[in-house]
Amino acid sequence: LSAQPHTFQWPIRVYWEDTDAGGIVFYANYLKFFERARTEWLRHLGVQQHALKQETGGMFVVVHTDMRYLLPARLDDVLCVTARIREMGGSRLVLEQQAFSEGKQLLCEGQISIAWVNSATMSPTRMPATLRQVLLASLDTDEPT
Amino acid sequence: LSAQPHTFQWPIRVYWEDTDAGGIVFYANYLKFFERARTEWLRHLGVQQHALKQETGGMFVVVHTDMRYLLPARLDDVLCVTARIREMGGSRLVLEQQAFSEGKQLLCEGQISIAWVNSATMSPTRMPATLRQVLLASLDTDEPT
Amino acid sequence: LSAQPHTFQWPIRVYWEDTDAGGIVFYANYLKFFERARTEWLRHLGVQQHALKQETGGMFVVVHTDMRYLLPARLDDVLCVTARIREMGGSRLVLEQQAFSEGKQLLCEGQISIAWVNSATMSPTRMPATLRQVLLASLDTDEPT
Amino acid sequence: LSAQPHTFQWPIRVYWEDTDAGGIVFYANYLKFFERARTEWLRHLGVQQHALKQETGGMFVVVHTDMRYLLPARLDDVLCVTARIREMGGSRLVLEQQAFSEGKQLLCEGQISIAWVNSATMSPTRMPATLRQVLLASLDTDEPT
Repeated sequence: LSAQPHTFQWPIRVYWEDTDAGGIVFYANYLKFFERARTEWLRHLGVQQHALKQETGGMFVVVHTDMRYLLPARLDDVLCVTARIREMGGSRLVLEQQAFSEGKQLLCEGQISIAWVNSATMSPTRMPATLRQVLLASLDTDEPT
Repeated sequence: LSAQPHTFQWPIRVYWEDTDAGGIVFYANYLKFFERARTEWLRHLGVQQHALKQETGGMFVVVHTDMRYLLPARLDDVLCVTARIREMGGSRLVLEQQAFSEGKQLLCEGQISIAWVNSATMSPTRMPATLRQVLLASLDTDEPT
Repeated sequence: LSAQPHTFQWPIRVYWEDTDAGGIVFYANYLKFFERARTEWLRHLGVQQHALKQETGGMFVVVHTDMRYLLPARLDDVLCVTARIREMGGSRLVLEQQAFSEGKQLLCEGQISIAWVNSATMSPTRMPATLRQVLLASLDTDEPT
Repeated sequence: LSAQPHTFQWPIRVYWEDTDAGGIVFYANYLKFFERARTEWLRHLGVQQHALKQETGGMFVVVHTDMRYLLPARLDDVLCVTARIREMGGSRLVLEQQAFSEGKQLLCEGQISIAWVNSATMSPTRMPATLRQVLLASLDTDEPT
């Protein structure tokens, strides 16, 4: 996994709960793995989603996911899941995410679009300025995280 | 399955999402199956949990589960899940639930205790009178449902 | 929901297990809902996946999902989930699926690509002739299911 | 959390996937959290469940769970989940497990019984000698893990 600038990495262990009767990780669970990595990426930037929801009444919701499942993962495997901003608008963020095996094989990749919404009305609204600044600042950093 | 008085029955199909790499239904998922049957039992009695939460600010939370896993279920199986009141207090309900195979074998059984709480404070509170009446009335009915 | 030819419909109830702290259905769960509808569509055509795996050693795996989340669903809602073949190859099937609210609003839609694989090696292989015939025959039927 | 001898501890972060529309961790998910901690406890002792299944044809299945849910956990919380052997037989193990908040409050506790079975027949069988030795040795250690 060549360390790309701006690419956050998060290790995820495969447990029984993640597998299905095919003996492999159930494909829907990669959406959970990707979300855990996005959450940890935001936390790494200083963004706590629960606190932010309490303070601003807003939250991110997922509006589009495009996922490709390439190779299977199995019980006890450790995956490396990445997250990287691909596009950023006033109320929307497109992330590029990948899951690699310990042997650096690409298992799954996807683009995830998230929108900032008013959590009461669920309608898209402009991200708070502080959140926006933190995200933009992360794009200017060259150091791999 | 001998039709017992007061015993509600609900069919549940096993999908890929329910299985694990052992080739069988993941044990934690029986808690979901039992909850689906409890929800449908309440709906059958005329109780809509989402509407009730909106109206009364209260909701049921699960406080104790005691589950025995006897025989495995597999992909494509149809289970029959039952629900029956075992004990009833002012703010608490103990249910007896079982899951049977199509061949009437007992796969899993459990006792589930649920408490009525104020959904803002999460503290136990007396069930609304109408809810209580509906539950008590269900105990007086002899007809199997 | 205008009844389209070749479009299978399956009702799905939203339970507590399906929701998240945003008060709505957790987006990853639509992949489960879509799979339940695909499974029931196959069952409706006479295809039992577990039996087929035992007989042929093959199974469907999901290789690509493209999902758009438009409107939220909530606890106790009943969704209508559809499934329809969009493309069909020798070892691959692309399905178009949608989830509607009771008020016929489109909540979520997606394209799901599934490949027939040898379940031991996980490599794509040609679908069994009988499976292929059943799928092709379903395309010739004009009656809505 | 006073460090008890023989008590293994494992941190678990709460993500969106773990919560429900009540705004708290969905109770069934504590079974997953407890299993993750058991798996890491076994790994800490040198036991890899997937490798062991491949070598011996055996695996652990959960046969009984008795869980008490005391206080709610919320999005972004970090729980400390413990695991400790309570009883050990030839083919069965009873574990005592607890989940604590960061403020050391007990949120959930349970007893989990697991049985070693032949994974083809699912019938209980004596644990492999090496597995048994590792588990017994862990009981003789006084150092907290």
